[in-house]
Amino acid sequence: MLPPIELLQLLKNENNFIIATHINPDGDGLGSSIALSMALQAFGKRTILLCRDPVPWQYKFLPGQERLFVFKEIQHTGYKAQDFKNLILVDCNDIDRITDSKDQDDQIARHLTAGSRLSTAVIDHHGTEKSFGDIRWVRPDSAATGLMLFYLIRELGIKITAEIAINLYAAIATDTGNFRFKSTTPEVLRVAADLVEAGAKPYVIYEELFGSWSRERFALFTKVLGTLRTENGIAVTKVTREMLEETLTTHDDTEHFVGLPMTIKGTKVSALFKEVEDNYYKVSLRSRDDINVAQIAELFGGGGHKNAAGYKIKADIESAEKRLLNTLAHSEQ
Amino acid sequence: MLPPIELLQLLKNENNFIIATHINPDGDGLGSSIALSMALQAFGKRTILLCRDPVPWQYKFLPGQERLFVFKEIQHTGYKAQDFKNLILVDCNDIDRITDSKDQDDQIARHLTAGSRLSTAVIDHHGTEKSFGDIRWVRPDSAATGLMLFYLIRELGIKITAEIAINLYAAIATDTGNFRFKSTTPEVLRVAADLVEAGAKPYVIYEELFGSWSRERFALFTKVLGTLRTENGIAVTKVTREMLEETLTTHDDTEHFVGLPMTIKGTKVSALFKEVEDNYYKVSLRSRDDINVAQIAELFGGGGHKNAAGYKIKADIESAEKRLLNTLAHSEQ
Repeated sequence: MLPPIELLQLLKNENNFIIATHINPDGDGLGSSIALSMALQAFGKRTILLCRDPVPWQYKFLPGQERLFVFKEIQHTGYKAQDFKNLILVDCNDIDRITDSKDQDDQIARHLTAGSRLSTAVIDHHGTEKSFGDIRWVRPDSAATGLMLFYLIRELGIKITAEIAINLYAAIATDTGNFRFKSTTPEVLRVAADLVEAGAKPYVIYEELFGSWSRERFALFTKVLGTLRTENGIAVTKVTREMLEETLTTHDDTEHFVGLPMTIKGTKVSALFKEVEDNYYKVSLRSRDDINVAQIAELFGGGGHKNAAGYKIKADIESAEKRLLNTLAHSEQ
Repeated sequence: MLPPIELLQLLKNENNFIIATHINPDGDGLGSSIALSMALQAFGKRTILLCRDPVPWQYKFLPGQERLFVFKEIQHTGYKAQDFKNLILVDCNDIDRITDSKDQDDQIARHLTAGSRLSTAVIDHHGTEKSFGDIRWVRPDSAATGLMLFYLIRELGIKITAEIAINLYAAIATDTGNFRFKSTTPEVLRVAADLVEAGAKPYVIYEELFGSWSRERFALFTKVLGTLRTENGIAVTKVTREMLEETLTTHDDTEHFVGLPMTIKGTKVSALFKEVEDNYYKVSLRSRDDINVAQIAELFGGGGHKNAAGYKIKADIESAEKRLLNTLAHSEQ
């Protein structure tokens, strides 16, 4: 998997880069961005790492995560928006995935969305077709953006340090569900082996990513399981604000919950309804095999991967559920 | 990891083999035994695969699992015990791990335990020190017996077919918790990559091993989580016979349950008490890092690995719990 020559040239010839990953960042977005930032610094470049949202708790162990600034913090860096001439989007491939364009108070958001002032590149494995970016390296066949970064960093001739290896391993482990998804190819396993040799510790990273639940989160999990209903291979669970209050948790604590009902034999789709406000839900979807929940999510104005997607809906819980179930029933015809 | 020459010679020079794995067989025991049986047959040898217990439901997908006979079925094979001159223990290294020696009605059990009539070899990665076996290939540094089998089969010059690959991948995935335990080395990942290339499908095998729960099992799981109590880093859960009856499940359905409380941050030991009869419990233990639960289990007459062990105890639940908690507290001094 070779990166395009234009991308290598941009990284070699230019000297400062904004590296930005998507809103609600995950292990692949963060690990890949941090690894790129570290690699470019080793190469003598200036980088700044931006994200609309702060690093979620389960990624706080990533070495270098403190490099990430949320947009509003940029003044603390001593940088000014106009210092930056190059923007690289990592693990997403459109500007609307990194910033809420309505946020006109934010100088960085304005700077980034102005576009023409910057050279732009995207490095991503998400399949959504967009045209943003002077240089687009988009490989939907790659299990993770972290895998692409591994090849990019190697191609730049930069040593994969233990810190870079941990970030890239975490990126790949996140997006392959720790080597359990269909995307787990021999190549993925061999790159993972190289990263372990370079200093990533699989059991430590697994514990951090998937196995460090607070007691509160575990209590929430037990409650959420209690809401499970299954019908025609569709598993529905719910998180209400009341449940969050009772267990002293937040929506961040629900990460991966939607995947668990998939372990029930015959489950084709799992949907988790997360109450944000009265009659306003965030819905996470997971699916097996050929059921494309990204298409379903897009119908509701959301998006994602074929087997992992999400959307938001303004409706009471009964209608929200009903609309999803109807849409799923219709899409299978 | 090269097998001893004596083992290679035995397999090359002899023509018939009993391959036996341990009681309550798991994915490593079964996958490794089936792979060895397939490899030796490809080599023109006669093999019979024996186990005291039948193949549990989650391993029924292993190609060739129908080769396994429980002791009492041997008459259906047309073989007689005295036909066999060679015994290979796989994923265990002592005769008392494959048969209940009290079972004197069983001709095979008698034949196997007579010992002197047979050439015996053991292939195992469990560290318990025993002296059984004319040839002992015991590698506690190996993540799985399946990993040893990979090298053995390659050394014999036998092609790793898709069927062998699936069995070996399942063996390795079982004993590394799908590449999440400390035993996940670069070597493990590279052998896994070779096995995927030979035809093993990671996502299919993961689903079968870890992701094909019945609705009944999932209901039991929700109940078991409801019994969770944590204290000083020790998580205790319970399965009563009443819970099994209510959910139409059996003790087989509790596999892996003991691991889940380990996801709670700060949990050092997880113990699952499974009620077998009135005042009679099977106890499964899991631990993190340097806490050796095999030693704890041995104190109660059980055994296992450093971080995964078990024992049986005749006591009411309160005393059983208390004795374990006291022993754990004492062992940490």
